[in-house]
Amino acid sequence: MTAVPLPLEQEGTLTLSGQDADGHGATVRRSVLAGGVRVLTEAVPGLRSATLGAWVGVGSRDEADGHHGSTHFLEHLLFKGTRHRSALDIASAFDAVGGESNAATGKEHTTYYARVLDTDLPLAVDVIADMVTSATLDPEDLEGERQVILEELAMNDDDPVDVAHERFTEQVFGADSPLGRPIGGTAQTILDVPRDAVWEHYQQHYTAPGLVVTAAGGLDHDAVCAAVSAALAGAGWPQDARTPLPRRSAGGRQDRGIADGLPGGSVLTVDRPTEQANVVLGGAGLRAGDPRRHVLAVLNAVLGGGMSSRLFQEVRERRGLAYSVYSFSSGYADAGLFGLYAGCTPSRVPQVVELLAHEWEQLATGGLRDGELQRAIGQVSGGTVLALEDSGSRMSRLGKAELVHGEYLSLEDALARAASVTADDVQQLAAELWAAPHHLTVVGPFESDPVPVAP
Amino acid sequence: MTAVPLPLEQEGTLTLSGQDADGHGATVRRSVLAGGVRVLTEAVPGLRSATLGAWVGVGSRDEADGHHGSTHFLEHLLFKGTRHRSALDIASAFDAVGGESNAATGKEHTTYYARVLDTDLPLAVDVIADMVTSATLDPEDLEGERQVILEELAMNDDDPVDVAHERFTEQVFGADSPLGRPIGGTAQTILDVPRDAVWEHYQQHYTAPGLVVTAAGGLDHDAVCAAVSAALAGAGWPQDARTPLPRRSAGGRQDRGIADGLPGGSVLTVDRPTEQANVVLGGAGLRAGDPRRHVLAVLNAVLGGGMSSRLFQEVRERRGLAYSVYSFSSGYADAGLFGLYAGCTPSRVPQVVELLAHEWEQLATGGLRDGELQRAIGQVSGGTVLALEDSGSRMSRLGKAELVHGEYLSLEDALARAASVTADDVQQLAAELWAAPHHLTVVGPFESDPVPVAP
Repeated sequence: MTAVPLPLEQEGTLTLSGQDADGHGATVRRSVLAGGVRVLTEAVPGLRSATLGAWVGVGSRDEADGHHGSTHFLEHLLFKGTRHRSALDIASAFDAVGGESNAATGKEHTTYYARVLDTDLPLAVDVIADMVTSATLDPEDLEGERQVILEELAMNDDDPVDVAHERFTEQVFGADSPLGRPIGGTAQTILDVPRDAVWEHYQQHYTAPGLVVTAAGGLDHDAVCAAVSAALAGAGWPQDARTPLPRRSAGGRQDRGIADGLPGGSVLTVDRPTEQANVVLGGAGLRAGDPRRHVLAVLNAVLGGGMSSRLFQEVRERRGLAYSVYSFSSGYADAGLFGLYAGCTPSRVPQVVELLAHEWEQLATGGLRDGELQRAIGQVSGGTVLALEDSGSRMSRLGKAELVHGEYLSLEDALARAASVTADDVQQLAAELWAAPHHLTVVGPFESDPVPVAP
Repeated sequence: MTAVPLPLEQEGTLTLSGQDADGHGATVRRSVLAGGVRVLTEAVPGLRSATLGAWVGVGSRDEADGHHGSTHFLEHLLFKGTRHRSALDIASAFDAVGGESNAATGKEHTTYYARVLDTDLPLAVDVIADMVTSATLDPEDLEGERQVILEELAMNDDDPVDVAHERFTEQVFGADSPLGRPIGGTAQTILDVPRDAVWEHYQQHYTAPGLVVTAAGGLDHDAVCAAVSAALAGAGWPQDARTPLPRRSAGGRQDRGIADGLPGGSVLTVDRPTEQANVVLGGAGLRAGDPRRHVLAVLNAVLGGGMSSRLFQEVRERRGLAYSVYSFSSGYADAGLFGLYAGCTPSRVPQVVELLAHEWEQLATGGLRDGELQRAIGQVSGGTVLALEDSGSRMSRLGKAELVHGEYLSLEDALARAASVTADDVQQLAAELWAAPHHLTVVGPFESDPVPVAP
């Protein structure tokens, strides 16, 4: 009942969780291939579909000045064609088998994934490996895709909830910091970024020692490894012994306070002619690798994670002030954020902000009430088990284990950690979050700040 | 390889699909309980979770004048408390086991559902049955929830994509027609609707002969039936022999043209200070029960259903005019709609509208190209099989079989129907859709119509 470490120097294959260990009949295995590519799979007996993911440990925080948005730009361009396939070939390959394929760029990682029938898994490996190794970044395609990305940014800008979260992140980490910048860049940076920068980004970060392939569902580990090896060898990627890249969190100063190095508190009001005001209140959170992340999951469940949470009950059920209200968190290698969100009538922003702050502070000072801890642990545990129904969740869990945590937690271990969380743990963490500087973001029809200071 | 009819007069239990028939090891059974409640389950061996749904055949189209939005209002109120449970009790019951529960109101149906671990299925039956049978609609709670619904409507109104689809639906069916009205009502109708109307709606439509319970996952059909019977008997619902209500489509004139009785073509521009313009072009579509719905699925795949579709390739890949572009359809008992959507820079609306129309017309007049039919059939078939991974999709499929189609199609049957679609079928349907009056909706920063007539 302990986590299995995932050593970077280890070559060969490791069984992380057998049938007995996880109780679901699934077997988790990990191999470091000769070129340094890591492959983690979870074979789920009886499942006739599988989700494949290719993870590259590069995100928007790694971009040089003047190239902001290039990671996301690159993600788009991988679908535009390779030395062996046109954009239509790539699209057709997945569409012809009903597979869903997509990609996501984050601040620290980029992921390409596809969900397919088990018999189509070799095809998925082949196409995604082709994209990762052999994209051409054709200059003409690049100019066309620049326009598509500008449309995507405009679409996001038309979503006031998205704007509120984006701006809140900027406030917590600092608008000019690598973590605070928007993942997709801005219209101006996208117009400015040259092909050379995107190409260099691709050459530098899409390498065998930086690549992690994860898959879950109806599959055979050795067959997946063989397919990955064959695809990478075919693309000319190295097959000699290499060591995977160190993890981003390695060497991070995990002993610092959560707000160390982050900006002081702030208030930002974005004037938009919307019906609702979108309010985010929060501040620093836990780093991704923080061992208290299990406490944070329980804390979120108590404060704003479901219909029985304090925020839902107080803001929505008792007072009818909001339809959507919740708490949330994100963690990165060296910093994290934590926040409370509500969408409400503009005139009620002061009342809602006060309520959000009140509930947060109450948890920090008054701790848990009868039954809350058990309910929250039940919610986290049940959610963890229910997520196993979806091969995409399993695939993601493997990717995070490898890239973020450097250790694999079986289902049993994860449930044991949730169950071990105490009421004191939750209150102490709430107090630590509350003690960090507070940031308030409001997006709505306001010519001046409806709340001048974040409570 | 034929559909199994679901006769309303039939009492007792019917096995719709055994292990051999569906090839996935799942068994589908249907029982009509004594009081007239229908229970359909799909037992999936090896699955440790299950999704439960309670379906009531009432939607926004059934609302009397002056009570628009009352169906959705009622859906909210069922979570506010019953004779046996407070709102917090209901929320806590699901949260404590990590179950996701929610509800959805449509134009013709209302559904309450929950995804839980298999061992928690009896609890889910108990709570949802309590909500369906014994809600109190407490007047004070109702006033609080009125505010929550106003916030929900305001939130939707802040989403320009949502606004475009809502208004397009009004144009196709007529703004004052029962199908054309927005499902949630408007702020004014929500402010006006009296408790009596909601209560009457509840009494009239939430009855044993109108209720359908569906479940899929790790379950035992007889145990689900017993749990449903016990919960309904406990609430005082009839246990004597009753016949289920007729389906909405019964007696519908399926021989009419798709646009018969619908308004003529129209153009609507909604002025909003957004970055992007949101464009919908389309018109009448197929009724939900139309046997050509399998052709429509293939048509959507060809025209605007994936990355290899014509719209994606022409509008996004070749010209970079949009990030989001697709075709869509909705079917109801006696009418349907079909449309093409794109989000683009406002100045390019005329070009995008012309392209959407051009691709639609090309399919109607020129038919399919080499390889398109097989790829589209593969996409529809693969998507159908992949959806089986999710117990929620299986649960939904059972509900629609019972309430909409009146027949059950096994996986094998559904795949056979998709495979039987011909290129001529697709072209003929495209021509029929093209021949109906065209409606154009544009939401964006326009003081006058950027395109005065729908092409």
